[in-house]
Amino acid sequence: MPVTLDTARELDRRDPLAPFKARFALPEGLLYLDGNSLGAQPLAAREALATTRDQWRDELIKGWNQGWFDAPERLGNLMAPLIGAGQGEVIVTDNITLNLFKLLGYITESRGRGRPVILSEGGNFPTDGYIAQGFCRFGDYEHRFLPEGADLAEHLDGVAVVVLSEVHYRTGRRRDMAATTRLVHEHGAEVIWDLAHSAGALPVDLHGSGARYAVGCTYKYLNGGPGAPAFLYVHRDHQGGGWQPLSGWHGHAAPFAFDADYTPAPDITRFRTGTHSALIYAPLEASLELWQEVDMAALRDKSLALSELFRDCLADVVEAHGIDDITPAVEERGSQVALIEREHGYAIVQALIARGVIGDYREPGLMRFGFTPLYLSYEDVWQAARHFREVVENREYLEARFQVRSEVT
Amino acid sequence: MPVTLDTARELDRRDPLAPFKARFALPEGLLYLDGNSLGAQPLAAREALATTRDQWRDELIKGWNQGWFDAPERLGNLMAPLIGAGQGEVIVTDNITLNLFKLLGYITESRGRGRPVILSEGGNFPTDGYIAQGFCRFGDYEHRFLPEGADLAEHLDGVAVVVLSEVHYRTGRRRDMAATTRLVHEHGAEVIWDLAHSAGALPVDLHGSGARYAVGCTYKYLNGGPGAPAFLYVHRDHQGGGWQPLSGWHGHAAPFAFDADYTPAPDITRFRTGTHSALIYAPLEASLELWQEVDMAALRDKSLALSELFRDCLADVVEAHGIDDITPAVEERGSQVALIEREHGYAIVQALIARGVIGDYREPGLMRFGFTPLYLSYEDVWQAARHFREVVENREYLEARFQVRSEVT
Repeated sequence: MPVTLDTARELDRRDPLAPFKARFALPEGLLYLDGNSLGAQPLAAREALATTRDQWRDELIKGWNQGWFDAPERLGNLMAPLIGAGQGEVIVTDNITLNLFKLLGYITESRGRGRPVILSEGGNFPTDGYIAQGFCRFGDYEHRFLPEGADLAEHLDGVAVVVLSEVHYRTGRRRDMAATTRLVHEHGAEVIWDLAHSAGALPVDLHGSGARYAVGCTYKYLNGGPGAPAFLYVHRDHQGGGWQPLSGWHGHAAPFAFDADYTPAPDITRFRTGTHSALIYAPLEASLELWQEVDMAALRDKSLALSELFRDCLADVVEAHGIDDITPAVEERGSQVALIEREHGYAIVQALIARGVIGDYREPGLMRFGFTPLYLSYEDVWQAARHFREVVENREYLEARFQVRSEVT
Repeated sequence: MPVTLDTARELDRRDPLAPFKARFALPEGLLYLDGNSLGAQPLAAREALATTRDQWRDELIKGWNQGWFDAPERLGNLMAPLIGAGQGEVIVTDNITLNLFKLLGYITESRGRGRPVILSEGGNFPTDGYIAQGFCRFGDYEHRFLPEGADLAEHLDGVAVVVLSEVHYRTGRRRDMAATTRLVHEHGAEVIWDLAHSAGALPVDLHGSGARYAVGCTYKYLNGGPGAPAFLYVHRDHQGGGWQPLSGWHGHAAPFAFDADYTPAPDITRFRTGTHSALIYAPLEASLELWQEVDMAALRDKSLALSELFRDCLADVVEAHGIDDITPAVEERGSQVALIEREHGYAIVQALIARGVIGDYREPGLMRFGFTPLYLSYEDVWQAARHFREVVENREYLEARFQVRSEVT
């Protein structure tokens, strides 16, 4: 390998984030490079699940007055410092799909119908486009795709709202959120940022970027558990609007007054819908509390160092075997490495999984490896690269058992 | 008391459902008559939460292929026999508020815009009206309330969809689902049934009633845990429609093809939105498995016997103290007793809670007591009635500490 194991170990010795690894419950021997799909389990989240389970048993209905009811706002305030938002600007609820629908409704209602187009990114994670299409169909707006790689400025005519990801789920490419937000606003449109692959992956600066609206998930880099609730951000200066369409009783200005008519809450709680799954908030809250201790600049440094280490270890293999490394340059990178091998990509990922190295695969040909600095060591990454090298050099992926397709989320 | 403790104990000895009580984790000494708000914890649900917690730790992303991804359909099929539905007609996902929005969109899209009115029940649980108002505002429909106690037939002109509860959350009054469904269809409208207070409370017969659409929750009588996901039912003959507005990737015909454009799944899975909270499905699934063993006719018998016992024990107190018993006659009753005491109702409920008897209170003046036959014994109900009698006869509710208002869900 172009990099020695000793080098990786030396990097671990100097790593200020190294102590965090012991705070996760990681299966023995697993090299997990898929924290960009589902984060590992913090020990504190394990404990929190046990606690909330007892709380259901012991407190029953009283639990709603003991932290369950206001969990969406309380966890929102824990999210806020991780994404450059202020207190009262973030709520944790529902999933990204639903939160996008709410924001599309909220923004278009306050803007009026002068600009009929909702724009989403072609080639991005499909749910952002799907829900924009659903919104347009029912709200009588026109949905358009921004072609992949196109110049955004040339596609903003008539656009009311554009949905963009800060970090792209396939390529890991990071958009300049400040410059893009400025451009969109100059064209009289609004932008909703999808932070699914940036929250917890790198320092996100919503206020510093001038961002007004954002959504994101908490089960990837933020380790909230499978399908943990998503977040929704609205800058405080833009919370004076009216309704969001999914107007349930928890988003009412006075939910316990049981008024006949809906009046939206005047603050971020208007983006709540109906009764939420209280049990799922506890592990996420424990994880977000752990995140309060993390130096995000150190996180970014290690994230880039890990992905560079992986690439350095494999530079010769990638070149020799015609694998296309589409990982962006460090200044435009999220926290993943993206390699394309159209013929054998799927089988390579399967062969790696068989060796206990978990990455993931997306058609066509894309092998994704996510780097989560809190629980991945440099040695882990070096070992994962070694397995990759062996799988490719030995053509292990040609074994029949690695060709069988199954659903992968 | 008009009924002796021995009588209650004799009823327990003859109760075919008595063995179920041992399968719940109930706090020692608590008399819990609020299972109509949040159900008690099945022991199997405790175990399932522990198992799924380990599954997150050990399987990580692979968990999605080991039962997490298809949980909404699998649990829907477990729900089906409890509500008189068939396999493939029920899905467990999101909450009632969101599921109502999906059905309103789905039904109105296939009907066209000829009838512009969405009707919901005045005086019902407010979220059903709130989400109907949100839907109408964004979809350009007109929302109207059916006045409480009004004749439905006189309010169906121009109505596309009416949202009705089988059992009313305040009074516990049960509508005749078959007759009402027939009436609505005869007037050219559709009805969405809200089964929040009937699923698990009594035998529900969706097919037998001719019902085409329904929603309901699983955290009350079905004991799925706080905020456990809701269910949504569409009769198989009405699954041939098009989009529902909350069109996320899990509702796509081929979610893992990552197509650019949304194509709704041809079956009940079109009502999924985005990624769901996998952890919360495990305890609900365990509870629904327990429910498969329950004889629903026996459940109904015991439910009515429990509520009658409570009323019999208190008939003289209720009369002597001017409390208004608005509990419907048995043939129109859900599984609760509803007593109104406008001046002291809140304080009476607080005084009962201080004695370990949990009911709940809804303005104005309504004391609700829910009867859950799987984990309430006749003796429990007798003891709860004794406490009620003592609180009222001793005017214990006048103590200052019971006057302090706090939020109650």
